[in-house]
Amino acid sequence: MNYTEIVEQIKAKESFLCVGLDTDIEKLPKFLLDLSDPIYAFNKAIIDKTAPYTIAYKPNLAFYEAQGKKGWESLEKTSWYIKETYPNIFLIADAKRGDIGNTSTQYAKAFFETLPFDAITVAPYMGSDSVKPFLEFDNKFVILLALTSNEGALDFQYFENNEYEFLFENVLKISQQWADKEKMMYVVGATRAEMLESIRKIVPDHFLLVPGVGAQGGNLEQVVQYGINSNCGLIVNSSRAIIYAGKEEDFDTKAEQAAKQISEEMRKLLKNYGII
Amino acid sequence: MNYTEIVEQIKAKESFLCVGLDTDIEKLPKFLLDLSDPIYAFNKAIIDKTAPYTIAYKPNLAFYEAQGKKGWESLEKTSWYIKETYPNIFLIADAKRGDIGNTSTQYAKAFFETLPFDAITVAPYMGSDSVKPFLEFDNKFVILLALTSNEGALDFQYFENNEYEFLFENVLKISQQWADKEKMMYVVGATRAEMLESIRKIVPDHFLLVPGVGAQGGNLEQVVQYGINSNCGLIVNSSRAIIYAGKEEDFDTKAEQAAKQISEEMRKLLKNYGII
Repeated sequence: MNYTEIVEQIKAKESFLCVGLDTDIEKLPKFLLDLSDPIYAFNKAIIDKTAPYTIAYKPNLAFYEAQGKKGWESLEKTSWYIKETYPNIFLIADAKRGDIGNTSTQYAKAFFETLPFDAITVAPYMGSDSVKPFLEFDNKFVILLALTSNEGALDFQYFENNEYEFLFENVLKISQQWADKEKMMYVVGATRAEMLESIRKIVPDHFLLVPGVGAQGGNLEQVVQYGINSNCGLIVNSSRAIIYAGKEEDFDTKAEQAAKQISEEMRKLLKNYGII
Repeated sequence: MNYTEIVEQIKAKESFLCVGLDTDIEKLPKFLLDLSDPIYAFNKAIIDKTAPYTIAYKPNLAFYEAQGKKGWESLEKTSWYIKETYPNIFLIADAKRGDIGNTSTQYAKAFFETLPFDAITVAPYMGSDSVKPFLEFDNKFVILLALTSNEGALDFQYFENNEYEFLFENVLKISQQWADKEKMMYVVGATRAEMLESIRKIVPDHFLLVPGVGAQGGNLEQVVQYGINSNCGLIVNSSRAIIYAGKEEDFDTKAEQAAKQISEEMRKLLKNYGII
């Protein structure tokens, strides 16, 4: 999937919603637990109901790995189901990987060859050769951590050099030497919406993946106000607020309502800013 | 497994060798490929031959994930085989994980509950709440990335504040507020052996996991000269130089010879420095 196709999909669906599949077996409706693969059954139902309002899905690897090889099987089935049933939807592995070159090559193979993901989140700490192996695949994206939505973001991401530049700003600058908007995106947490303004000065064209709207307290209007560009340039993720909107047999229609509601807010904002 | 048990094992085996199980299906001896699980068969043979010289094994997750759910199964079998057959050997998941709190909790569950690992490598970029969930498990270790052995380490780990402090030094300082040597270790690459001297001033007591000896060009004597402390305090990893020492039917005895040779160098150094 390429940059233009993502923009086209945002305009066609009038949404820039990503649904995070942080599927925790302990939070599933109880009646699903008798099935042979409750996590996949849950995901499939959520996906089928939310797909009309969604331009991206983002399975969070930790929740699958916590279930061992059975969880990895649920991840495989989920990712192939999305890619085969909804081929226009952007598929993100939220994996926060990154290692020395020959190891990152194996991670790239895991997510871009063995599995059908279009993008993977990558941690920048180990630098260029930990990121570049992921960039060697056509029509695949690295989504590099820049400024995250959690409290611990303050510990190192705001480490400042003697030119008053924060580490996350340096990550944004340096990493642009490795790839442009056709291959790279950045994670910028919604809980730091006001920072989006200065971030946009460094990366005006790239897509930003914005987690933290909803359960983590981020505000959609502010994210758009500070972060939108002429191609939208935003993919806003919501996980818990959508997938756990209901706990009973109607969990999927509850998720649909939640996704629809956010996408309607997104449509208004896209119109206000002249994108559609 | 706790700090004292690791020190005791180093003294008993007169070695501080970690064998990295970066098991690449494309590099296996061809005769193994007809087996139902060649990766596990390879690992088991390597482990049985190298265990007398080894105090730790370190499967590198990327190589297992690249094979999808079959790879995850090989990882599960390998890790349980080590823990059940050689319970005194320290078992490290080289996974470089790290995410917001509720996600790191799931990763901790994956490696410390579903799988029997004693330690996991963690990337520091997302800060305290991305690391702390791993510290809530008794007798388990976080091995935090500080200064890595790859070229890209120069990109951000040497980012310097106005007090002439590098990012990796700040990571070492700040993270000591989260846990002491009983729960935390650090990754310090052997290709930067001379840096170990200043690192030891910041973390005198912690174990350092040192990759990069062998294929990546690091020098064992220098690592010991600059990095050893009164409890040894070093776990030195070698992956490719041991597990791919041979390519034919005798790959396991070749690996044994390679491990034995390194452990003999280690014994001499441990004696020279008065540890044994």
